[in-house]
Amino acid sequence: MDNLIREEIFHYAKEWVLEAGNIIRNTIDDPLEIGTKSNPNDLVTTMDKNTEKFFVEKIKTTFPDHLLLSEEGFGDEIDSLDGTVWIIDPIDGTMNFVQQKRNFAISVGIYQDGVGEIGLIYNVMEDELYTALRGEGAFKGEKKLSPLKEGMILEESVIGLNHLWLCENRLVDEKVMQQLVKTARGTRTYGSAALEFAYVAEGILEGYLTMGLSPWDIAAGMIIVNEVGGVTTNIDGDPINMVGRNAVFVGHPDVHNRIIKDFIAKGRK
Amino acid sequence: MDNLIREEIFHYAKEWVLEAGNIIRNTIDDPLEIGTKSNPNDLVTTMDKNTEKFFVEKIKTTFPDHLLLSEEGFGDEIDSLDGTVWIIDPIDGTMNFVQQKRNFAISVGIYQDGVGEIGLIYNVMEDELYTALRGEGAFKGEKKLSPLKEGMILEESVIGLNHLWLCENRLVDEKVMQQLVKTARGTRTYGSAALEFAYVAEGILEGYLTMGLSPWDIAAGMIIVNEVGGVTTNIDGDPINMVGRNAVFVGHPDVHNRIIKDFIAKGRK
Repeated sequence: MDNLIREEIFHYAKEWVLEAGNIIRNTIDDPLEIGTKSNPNDLVTTMDKNTEKFFVEKIKTTFPDHLLLSEEGFGDEIDSLDGTVWIIDPIDGTMNFVQQKRNFAISVGIYQDGVGEIGLIYNVMEDELYTALRGEGAFKGEKKLSPLKEGMILEESVIGLNHLWLCENRLVDEKVMQQLVKTARGTRTYGSAALEFAYVAEGILEGYLTMGLSPWDIAAGMIIVNEVGGVTTNIDGDPINMVGRNAVFVGHPDVHNRIIKDFIAKGRK
Repeated sequence: MDNLIREEIFHYAKEWVLEAGNIIRNTIDDPLEIGTKSNPNDLVTTMDKNTEKFFVEKIKTTFPDHLLLSEEGFGDEIDSLDGTVWIIDPIDGTMNFVQQKRNFAISVGIYQDGVGEIGLIYNVMEDELYTALRGEGAFKGEKKLSPLKEGMILEESVIGLNHLWLCENRLVDEKVMQQLVKTARGTRTYGSAALEFAYVAEGILEGYLTMGLSPWDIAAGMIIVNEVGGVTTNIDGDPINMVGRNAVFVGHPDVHNRIIKDFIAKGRK
């Protein structure tokens, strides 16, 4: 992607993310219509839908040849990342949004022919924006994030993972995952994939494992984490399918290797 | 406790908590000496110790007849809560402090002959202070917290719990706890007991379960949660021992009842 064009797209994307976040903050205490999707805990609200429509309208008006892959279905139906594709989750962490009114994010990843060029993750209530342009490093606000520390070991790492990994599941023997919990220094669960990617990029989590994510949950995070030397794969260590669902594992490369080799591979179903 | 005296003690406690927090924020990026206590993940730093000494000095100078029960051992050796006792954790969530430089709190509970009179939990990096005086409600900053919603059900609740509850443990059959995870709407792990109490008081968690806590982890939180109608017991539903260690369960009364009856009691070892 041409650098000038990329800068222009980034400029707009940032402006829209901040504007959408501002609207959400200003209406956070308004009554919500809450529906469910695949199961009673897969929540969707009018705010998710309206925020997505906000992006669709902005993008289609300003960049009519760009495509949009997004969570609530107002984007395009696409099965490849050919061209310029915006991959958007209007509210990542909808359960947190509904129950906590915090700890959720707007996630925008922009891909050119399958290559991640621009990533933005906006922690709306904290007003903290994580950004990256491919090859130019990652930022939290104006501050450039440091490359991940060399030589991390699992025993001194904090790992983000949902508690369901420790219950019987279709992916990995839960006993092996319980060993992982006992081996790591600590484990955390925050409930927003986009924010957990941002935390990996900041080095406050050394890894984050999740069972079933769609491209919009991870598109921005992958670009941002990549800029500080982190790795994103599926749980077998293979590349992510950007137009399907994946069990995703992002982390510090040392810790990522160790967890796949000594834990997941041994318990994989 | 006389109301005027209580106001005076609260005034000083608040001033000292904010001052200690300010010192921590100003030195957060300085190099740390990190040691371990009961196990390699039970961390303690010079910051924990210095912050505790700060409180000891302030309290002993201003209120020479008050006693102090605190984590790092610079307080008094006490085996009852007779008199006026400050129960202090200088840094609650030391692992977060070390690894994340955020998500930790100063916790100060002040008890008169065993009755919790004043509670303060200070999320240092967010500069958010939760306070309560017994009988006068709980506050986040200047804003009074609402009483917990009536009629909460577990299926729509988010519960804070450490992942170790889902691994083999000495307290409760892990299979039963795995059922709890699958029944609740969601589960979270933040790594600071004091903050998780504050989140229960705010109604952003409906419960928080933890395996082994000391009085300084919970003394302030119990007072704050109580003011919004939350309940703190051990995991059997019995009163907390304020001079020993406890497996602690704080929560919305409906959700608290349900979890003890339908889960913990069925799996208790």
